[in-house]
Amino acid sequence: MNDADFMREAITLARLAAEDGETPVGAVVVKNGEIVGRGRNRREVSKNALAHAELEAVEEACRTLGGWRLLECEMFVTLEPCPMCAGAIINSRIRRLVFGAYDKKSGSCGSVVDLFSLPYNHSPQKEGGFMENECSELLKSFFADVRRGIKKAPDGRNK
Amino acid sequence: MNDADFMREAITLARLAAEDGETPVGAVVVKNGEIVGRGRNRREVSKNALAHAELEAVEEACRTLGGWRLLECEMFVTLEPCPMCAGAIINSRIRRLVFGAYDKKSGSCGSVVDLFSLPYNHSPQKEGGFMENECSELLKSFFADVRRGIKKAPDGRNK
Repeated sequence: MNDADFMREAITLARLAAEDGETPVGAVVVKNGEIVGRGRNRREVSKNALAHAELEAVEEACRTLGGWRLLECEMFVTLEPCPMCAGAIINSRIRRLVFGAYDKKSGSCGSVVDLFSLPYNHSPQKEGGFMENECSELLKSFFADVRRGIKKAPDGRNK
Repeated sequence: MNDADFMREAITLARLAAEDGETPVGAVVVKNGEIVGRGRNRREVSKNALAHAELEAVEEACRTLGGWRLLECEMFVTLEPCPMCAGAIINSRIRRLVFGAYDKKSGSCGSVVDLFSLPYNHSPQKEGGFMENECSELLKSFFADVRRGIKKAPDGRNK
């Protein structure tokens, strides 16, 4: 499996989130070419501010690998991480992040700020805009459905 | 109960963390003068990169209140939050953060960066250095014990 295969798996997870009425974001953690953690946004269904795709994927990867250090791991996620998730990537020592769409409002790997460039004790490598069109399209079509009334807004408000 | 009472509860939680051999950090989330979430650092015991005091307190508060928005809530934590935890405080819409000791290495509410001053969709109020001596002392005496060999280093390495 290569980078595109891993991002396609993240996209599949994002689609499952959309089916649940959640903003479609999906993530996988990969070590030595194998997926060791999967996550998708579940914030509304789980009523939990922490239930972002990346945190779920990090937690599963920690369980799979039996420790909190995700050394030599990569994360593939459909949307640029928010500060919470970018911080979790730093804390877990993930080696490399690949994300799809940029998030101008809360993206913290280059958009609002680049946390990976600050002097924390770990600086993951990063690649943004990978398969950007497919990843952006997921979000655009989800919010178009919300506006047309086909889907309810994830938080019960108009976006 | 007032701010000092809530910080004392966070300090009690931090002491419980130290008893488990974890770096002593404790946190509470408060709404209308009542504690709705408690957390302490459990990173080593739970082998989970997400197991910081603040995230545990946010998760419990979401369960207590039945939703991901911790509007009108305050957090009291013994140590300045890292980027992951500062991001979780922004994401959960906590109104006000009070922290004790500053963390020059990964504190993200003024030390390495002040995430609350960036243009995210929510900017909590903050007060740093509250009961700073008591909160710093917890960490200093813990790491002094580690150096003297009374306690094992939390991550099995020398700090």
